[in-house]
Amino acid sequence: MKIYLDNAATTQPLIDKTLVSHIKTAWYNPSAAYAPAEAVFLEMKKTRQALCDVTGFDGGCIFTSGGTEANNMAILSAYKKGAHYITSAIEHPCVYETFRYLETMGAQVDYVRPNGFCIEAEDVAALVRSDTALVSIMHVNNETGAQNDIHAICGAVKAKNQNAAFHSDGVQALFKTGIDLSKSGVDYYTVSAHKIHALKGTGALLYSNNKAPIRLHFGGDQEYALRPGTENTLGIQAFYEALERGRDGFSAALEIVNGLHKKLLEGLSAIDGAEVNLPDIKVPHIVSVSFPGVRAEVLVRALGEKGIYIGTGAACSRGKLSRVLTACGVGKSSAKGAVRISLSALNTAHELAVCLEEIGYEVKKLRRFGRR
Amino acid sequence: MKIYLDNAATTQPLIDKTLVSHIKTAWYNPSAAYAPAEAVFLEMKKTRQALCDVTGFDGGCIFTSGGTEANNMAILSAYKKGAHYITSAIEHPCVYETFRYLETMGAQVDYVRPNGFCIEAEDVAALVRSDTALVSIMHVNNETGAQNDIHAICGAVKAKNQNAAFHSDGVQALFKTGIDLSKSGVDYYTVSAHKIHALKGTGALLYSNNKAPIRLHFGGDQEYALRPGTENTLGIQAFYEALERGRDGFSAALEIVNGLHKKLLEGLSAIDGAEVNLPDIKVPHIVSVSFPGVRAEVLVRALGEKGIYIGTGAACSRGKLSRVLTACGVGKSSAKGAVRISLSALNTAHELAVCLEEIGYEVKKLRRFGRR
Repeated sequence: MKIYLDNAATTQPLIDKTLVSHIKTAWYNPSAAYAPAEAVFLEMKKTRQALCDVTGFDGGCIFTSGGTEANNMAILSAYKKGAHYITSAIEHPCVYETFRYLETMGAQVDYVRPNGFCIEAEDVAALVRSDTALVSIMHVNNETGAQNDIHAICGAVKAKNQNAAFHSDGVQALFKTGIDLSKSGVDYYTVSAHKIHALKGTGALLYSNNKAPIRLHFGGDQEYALRPGTENTLGIQAFYEALERGRDGFSAALEIVNGLHKKLLEGLSAIDGAEVNLPDIKVPHIVSVSFPGVRAEVLVRALGEKGIYIGTGAACSRGKLSRVLTACGVGKSSAKGAVRISLSALNTAHELAVCLEEIGYEVKKLRRFGRR
Repeated sequence: MKIYLDNAATTQPLIDKTLVSHIKTAWYNPSAAYAPAEAVFLEMKKTRQALCDVTGFDGGCIFTSGGTEANNMAILSAYKKGAHYITSAIEHPCVYETFRYLETMGAQVDYVRPNGFCIEAEDVAALVRSDTALVSIMHVNNETGAQNDIHAICGAVKAKNQNAAFHSDGVQALFKTGIDLSKSGVDYYTVSAHKIHALKGTGALLYSNNKAPIRLHFGGDQEYALRPGTENTLGIQAFYEALERGRDGFSAALEIVNGLHKKLLEGLSAIDGAEVNLPDIKVPHIVSVSFPGVRAEVLVRALGEKGIYIGTGAACSRGKLSRVLTACGVGKSSAKGAVRISLSALNTAHELAVCLEEIGYEVKKLRRFGRR
């Protein structure tokens, strides 16, 4: 038995068409000056356009090695010595740690706390100053599924200081909620391929035409000379296949996941002591649930041994108490016992039923051991 | 007809085993805490070990998005304000441009000129100072195939200043020449997957245990907290398959390419006006040849239309006069007419014969047009 419920960590690649074509005919270096190489170059262009299309973004797009690099790039692009920045206390480490670095460089950074689990536009706007260089607020939180109203937040920021750049980490938003950034004022938006059934190692930064990012690396002239190094063409081609699939199947997939989400919440409410960390506004794909008195990593391991795969907070920071849940006001014991169940449209109601049953069983067992 | 002779730009992926296993079972997030994810983590460890094995390197290994990022990382790791650096005038742009950046940050950089096409140990050693922080000399040049004796160069550097770090860009050396870095004193060594029949988007930096690189990005704790972001696991798994294949087939492949190289030089010598830019010591995989009076990109396009794919200098800097060839003393007219023919063991003598015939034909034609 294998039940994969850790889709916020990564997703199963569904890119068969790409693999076949890449290995046979689409592996040329896109910088080379002959027809099959130029075809690869055009494939990249198609992917850029598809990204702008599915997000409604009007601007440029460069490919990076993933969401982390794209988020780093957006934030570091706005760096001005001594300037002021705003982000939230619930950002992914690749945003949060970049701001921590900027602080060591003399930047002033305000970390907005969530109201419950979501970031409020007025809380962000209240911190905007005349010297605010950039505001970075994630679209969907990777641990709780909380969805921030980035249109309202960006609008409030720009109303107070139209020169402040606005970035949003959309890694967990793409195809989990409808995205239309047209007329949003958003200057930078980050996406990642492996969260939408493509491959790890590819992300992209969408950017306003008047706010080209700085380059983080030095070398050749690839990606408009903004991101040197031979492009990850397989990853970019796979991204395109996943974007097409995600776009065409969006409504149907969302309906499936909405149904699963409802069943999941019902099932969890029947487990003694389960505390769902439930944002007011959220995507249905990600559910954080605490079992106070149980250590999350022990529960995850116990389920893993039965072939049921769920997460402990973010996949990339195992073992630590969640900074995000703590910022959301979740107590220490609850944060310690918080697991993340994250869904895709590939999951079934039966899988959820099995998972819920095993969680109920394991939680009971672990609590009994814990009390001894 | 398709004849691919641009193997220094990129190589055809030969990674069928990896693709099948990755898509089915090996796509999990290696940071997750369940068995199939931990298996992916172990696959990465295997690839690290394989890289150390095939290079004889004793130290650490982190994966990057490619050779460019790894080279950047090594060089920037040694940055100290106002310190002195040595590199060569024939480095790849991702090394050269990183030093140009360091110069803007106040670093003093000496660019060693080649003696002919190769960098001499005594020329490097003559520039070493007590405040030299890092010396970076490539192992094999990507445009000419020139092979530098990095053992001698590193030894000479360390003899003069044992605190100076030594880095070598080995992107074009792996499986093109025997590599044994054990007891070489080399502190950083860069490799890339897509030059050895694996995938674009994956490289690695090998580093001495006492010289851990700095991180260029901020985020999660992946790669010993040195390189955040979900790892490109498919690329790393494919790298392993290519490393195994490259290691097992090394002698046989080198023999094939040596034979092709001999035929290529013979064939070129029969073409009127061909000037092979021939290093004293070189790998047989890369041949630079000038046809003065012919514009390289026109020749490359003409051949491309016939399905014969060769390169103009480096794939990533098309259209510009080669800085590398110029530094090697190749005159302007010869540099303008320089193409790169780069071989792999997949090529055949018949392919070379066809290529040589078409080059002879096109060069004659282009010269005739040029004279009008």
